[in-house]
Amino acid sequence: MLFTKMHGLGNKYVFFNLLNNPLDNHDLSELARSVSDVNYGIGSDGMILICPSDKADFRMRIFNADGSEGKNCGNGLRCTAKYLYDNGYSESSQFTIETLGEIVEVEVELETNHKSTVRSVKVDMGEPKLQKADLPMEGDPFSSTINEPVIIENQEFHMTCLSMGNPHAILFVDDVKKFPLERWGPKIEHATLFPERVNVGIVHVLNEQEIDYRVWERGSGLTMACGTGACAAVVAAALNNRLKRELPITVHLPGGDLTILWDANNHVWKSGPAEYICHGELAIETCQTLFSR
Amino acid sequence: MLFTKMHGLGNKYVFFNLLNNPLDNHDLSELARSVSDVNYGIGSDGMILICPSDKADFRMRIFNADGSEGKNCGNGLRCTAKYLYDNGYSESSQFTIETLGEIVEVEVELETNHKSTVRSVKVDMGEPKLQKADLPMEGDPFSSTINEPVIIENQEFHMTCLSMGNPHAILFVDDVKKFPLERWGPKIEHATLFPERVNVGIVHVLNEQEIDYRVWERGSGLTMACGTGACAAVVAAALNNRLKRELPITVHLPGGDLTILWDANNHVWKSGPAEYICHGELAIETCQTLFSR
Repeated sequence: MLFTKMHGLGNKYVFFNLLNNPLDNHDLSELARSVSDVNYGIGSDGMILICPSDKADFRMRIFNADGSEGKNCGNGLRCTAKYLYDNGYSESSQFTIETLGEIVEVEVELETNHKSTVRSVKVDMGEPKLQKADLPMEGDPFSSTINEPVIIENQEFHMTCLSMGNPHAILFVDDVKKFPLERWGPKIEHATLFPERVNVGIVHVLNEQEIDYRVWERGSGLTMACGTGACAAVVAAALNNRLKRELPITVHLPGGDLTILWDANNHVWKSGPAEYICHGELAIETCQTLFSR
Repeated sequence: MLFTKMHGLGNKYVFFNLLNNPLDNHDLSELARSVSDVNYGIGSDGMILICPSDKADFRMRIFNADGSEGKNCGNGLRCTAKYLYDNGYSESSQFTIETLGEIVEVEVELETNHKSTVRSVKVDMGEPKLQKADLPMEGDPFSSTINEPVIIENQEFHMTCLSMGNPHAILFVDDVKKFPLERWGPKIEHATLFPERVNVGIVHVLNEQEIDYRVWERGSGLTMACGTGACAAVVAAALNNRLKRELPITVHLPGGDLTILWDANNHVWKSGPAEYICHGELAIETCQTLFSR
C-alpha cells in the first residue's frame, strides 16, 4: 500500500492516493490511527485520502490521528494541491477540492525558473465577516469592532474582531515576542464579551509587506501557526489603515511564513509552503495486521 | 535515498543500507536528527546504518534522535538481523554484527511453515556477572548476592544482584502490577549499597516457562521494556531455584514479550520480535535540504 508523507509548516500527514484505487471496506479510523502512530506506524498528525469527487475537481478526506474525520486543514489542503499538480492530475494550476466542510478553490504557484515545480499553494479562504453576530460577540449584532477599546481586568486593549470561519480578536503591539500572550490570551479568550470564546492574535506591522503575528488559539493555547488567524491579522491591519489592501503581505508566524492577500472581490487568499518528506510502501506485515482486524 | 522503518517492541528506527553505497562526507548526526524528527522527517528513536565490517559479518551504527552515536540497542540489533537475513545478505541464520561496543552473535528464528520468514531474532547477551565488584556493590568484591536480605528505609527486601553489562537488583514479588515499584525503585536505585546506582526489577514466576517482569531503570524510571533486565530476571530466578536453567523462558514485560535462555555455556540468549513498518524513499527536497548544509 503506497503512501506519501508531506508537511505544511510542520503539520504532517500521510497521504493515500485513491483516485484510481478506492479503499473499500476498510476501517478508515483504524487506518488513520495506525499510520499516525510514530511507534508502530509512520508518524503523523493524521491521514489524508485523495479521492475522486462528483462536486469538484477532486475530493480530500482528512482523518485525525485519533481516527475522527476532520473538516478542513489549510496545511493538509496545500499539500494535497501540490501532490495533485505534481503528479499530473490537474493540467491547470487552478482547481477545486471538495472537503467535508466545503468546496475550496486552490492555485499552485510555480517556481519562476522551474515551471514544473510547485513553490507554494494559494487557497481561497473566503470573505471576512465583520459583524459582531459573526463571531459571536456581545453588543449590536450588525455593528463591527474596529480598534474598539475593551477593558479586561482593568487593562484597556484596542481590539479589531472578525471571523474567517472562526472568530479572531486582533491587537496591535510593538513587539510580538515581548507581549505576554500566555497571560492575556486566556483572559481575552474567556471574556464574557465572547460567548463562544475567541482566538487572540497579536500583530506588529513591520513594513508595507510584512507583519509579525502570534496567536493564542481557542481551546489550544499558544500554537506555532494558525491559517485563519494570519488572514484575520492582515484584514485587521488593512481595516486600521496600517497596511494597504490588495497587496500580498508576508505574515511571519512562529512556525514559518504565510502570504495573505485580501483581494478586490473581498476574498482572502492564503499562500504557503507544502513539502514532501518521503514516499513509501507500508510493510506487508503492517497491512496484514491492519486489515485482518 | 532509500530507507526502511522497523520496530522491536515499539522501539523504532530508520534504517539505511550502506552495504553497497557508503554515505561518505555526510553529516551523520544531522541526518539522524532529520529523519528522526516526526514533524519534518520520518519519525523514529534514531537511525541505524547497516555497513560492511572487517571484524564481523556486518556492522551496525546507531545514532540517537539527538544525533549522538549509541553503543548498542537490543531492539535495533534484532531489526538489523532480520533485515540482513530477509534481504539475502546472510545465507546462514547465524551471523555476527559489529557494534560500537562489541561484536554480537545473532540468530534469526524462522516460522515453522514459512522457512523464509523471520519470526524472531535471538541475540547472545554474554555471560552474567555475579560478583559484587561487577555491579559494583558494597561488600566483599568477590562474593555474590543471591536472595540476600537488605534493609531500605526500615523495610527488608531479599535481593539477587547481577550484571548483564549493566547492574540489576532483582526482587521476587507476588504480583508485579501491585508492587509499588515507582515508590521503591528510586530508593533502591539510589541506596548507598550501589555506588553507581542500579536497575531495579521485580519478578513473579508464573510457571516453568513464564515470568512477569517490571523494571525501574537507572536514570529513566519506569520503562516499557529492558532487555538486559529480562536476562537478569531469568538468571536470578534460576539462581534461586525458582526456574530450571537451560529452558527458554517467556518474559512478559509491559511493552511485550521476550524469550530468555541461559544456556549450558553460561551465555544468556535473548529472543524477541522485529517488524517492518514501511519502506520508502526520502523526498528529493528533503535530501537537498539535508545535504546542502
